[in-house]
Amino acid sequence: MTRKPTLAVVGATGAVGAVMLQILSQRADVWGEIRLLASPRSAGRKLAVRGEEVEVVALTEEAFDGVDVAMFDVPDEVAAQWAPIAVARGAVVVDNSAAFRLDPEVPLVVPEVNPHAVRTRPRGIVANPNCTTLTMIVALGALHAEFGLRELVVSSYQAVSGAGRAGVDALRAQLSLVAGTELGTKPGDVRRAVGEDTGPFPEPVVLNVVPWAGSLREDGWSSEEMKVRDESRKILGLPRLPVAVTCVRVPVITTHSLTVHARFQGEVTVDRAREILATAPGVVLCDDPAAGEYPTPADVVGTDPTWVGRLRRALDDPTALELFVCGDNLRKGAALNTAQIAELVAAEWADR
Amino acid sequence: MTRKPTLAVVGATGAVGAVMLQILSQRADVWGEIRLLASPRSAGRKLAVRGEEVEVVALTEEAFDGVDVAMFDVPDEVAAQWAPIAVARGAVVVDNSAAFRLDPEVPLVVPEVNPHAVRTRPRGIVANPNCTTLTMIVALGALHAEFGLRELVVSSYQAVSGAGRAGVDALRAQLSLVAGTELGTKPGDVRRAVGEDTGPFPEPVVLNVVPWAGSLREDGWSSEEMKVRDESRKILGLPRLPVAVTCVRVPVITTHSLTVHARFQGEVTVDRAREILATAPGVVLCDDPAAGEYPTPADVVGTDPTWVGRLRRALDDPTALELFVCGDNLRKGAALNTAQIAELVAAEWADR
Repeated sequence: MTRKPTLAVVGATGAVGAVMLQILSQRADVWGEIRLLASPRSAGRKLAVRGEEVEVVALTEEAFDGVDVAMFDVPDEVAAQWAPIAVARGAVVVDNSAAFRLDPEVPLVVPEVNPHAVRTRPRGIVANPNCTTLTMIVALGALHAEFGLRELVVSSYQAVSGAGRAGVDALRAQLSLVAGTELGTKPGDVRRAVGEDTGPFPEPVVLNVVPWAGSLREDGWSSEEMKVRDESRKILGLPRLPVAVTCVRVPVITTHSLTVHARFQGEVTVDRAREILATAPGVVLCDDPAAGEYPTPADVVGTDPTWVGRLRRALDDPTALELFVCGDNLRKGAALNTAQIAELVAAEWADR
Repeated sequence: MTRKPTLAVVGATGAVGAVMLQILSQRADVWGEIRLLASPRSAGRKLAVRGEEVEVVALTEEAFDGVDVAMFDVPDEVAAQWAPIAVARGAVVVDNSAAFRLDPEVPLVVPEVNPHAVRTRPRGIVANPNCTTLTMIVALGALHAEFGLRELVVSSYQAVSGAGRAGVDALRAQLSLVAGTELGTKPGDVRRAVGEDTGPFPEPVVLNVVPWAGSLREDGWSSEEMKVRDESRKILGLPRLPVAVTCVRVPVITTHSLTVHARFQGEVTVDRAREILATAPGVVLCDDPAAGEYPTPADVVGTDPTWVGRLRRALDDPTALELFVCGDNLRKGAALNTAQIAELVAAEWADR
């Protein structure tokens, strides 16, 4: 009998951490000890995982002793500092921050798309992609394998939980301010009702859409838009793929949606694309508009797959497909993909 | 002194009609009599226009006697039946339904883009475009005049008032059901809370986005998506322009937003595009992300112009621009553009 590896969950008390503990409790159990790490102020709290109460331990160097795999769900700067420490203590790190995603010595892995990449990790770190990229990349990876991707134009409809618990709290507070009112029909009336405190968003998000996510990069691009472009290129192994993205926040609690205009190397057919998506692991094809079937966040939230609907061939370009995709940004978009990567690493123990 | 033309407003009691009466009260007054027409059950109601109470008259053939210009804000089938009757009685019809928009003998007019087209109207009818097309077409018309448009990829974030008063009522009712709850985090919880009655939408629209607007056309396209493509081509005089559109409903009361990926005939610069948009009639450039400036529906609602923000050149294609545009779907998207067309027609009286 092989030894089961020890797992550390760093950031166990955060929004993604909470979903991670659910996922670890639901999936086939490949882990020996599961150790929960968080900032010192959360130490001593008890959280349920695999049906047991586990006490949260403060994040220290020693906390990584004996850890085989450490999953990080913490801010970029915390990951940048602590991931190398965990590696030095002997752990393989699976990091869900942006700190290492574009490091050429760190693989960026989506198990349905590029599982092989997980084994080449010179820094001992494997990165988990951004939630917006993960919303579409499993479906696109399957289509790319058949048709050869040539260009992407993407628009997002991003849920507030992508900005963490503060994002959810902000939308819930704003919902209470507008329910039962006539707000939303006069210039600035929603803004005045919401007041100065718009939470982590630059504008009110209730009865509104906000064309901004992340921080400002060069030439007017947002960091979120650059992530979708750069990470998609790296995961698909297409370093020069043209990718145009506009990221927009919408008043949805959890589950990102994206419209995708995907151009391929040659002519495509909807029939073949449907076959590919209907059989691709991790994808559910939900596409029968005559029967009112297409994915929406309200139905997709809490589920694992990438849901694909509204599949059409571009009317004026036989090489392009249109898709509407939804994915739970806290599950496949964060915790689930991280857990899947960690399981790929854990499988190396079984192979030994 | 020339005679001021007589105007009829057909559908004066509807959602667009109400905005039309406001607009007629706000704009320079070019009209003699303004006659309000609606279905017989609304006859006798009094509505305010130009500071006076005007009694609504039932829609009959005789009601058009003496009318010079008749604006129609009614369902397609009502317009199809009654517009020719109004023309036969001597009126020029400006129709906001889809009944005549693609008729080659009916011009489809946006006064900032193709005002000249209004004069060639063999059927005596001028059509007003769909609200989604109107959200972007003024800005795109200005850019096209300089750069020459070659392709459009568009995604919409459409307000519920695009589906009329029933759409607004549905969202308001749904807001009251979710405010103060933890809904939006479990599969189907929003759907269960909203129940079977989702108003004019196929799914709950609160805490959700719904990738559908209109009725089903061939190959999975929605009527709304086909309108954006076909109407944009006609207005811009580019009958073969490739246009890929995905229309999505969002929980916003009024003001449609669109992301636009616009490819032009040659290389473009953001600096020149900014100059064009900053001086284009009917366009406000609101684009300084460093200062948190970009248009959102909450700020744009109730205003007349097309608001443009997030202007960027595609990172991987020097011939393409990205834009985020917002426009009030009841004003420029419907009543305002109809009023502007009617004023172009009225100007012919002054020229006589």
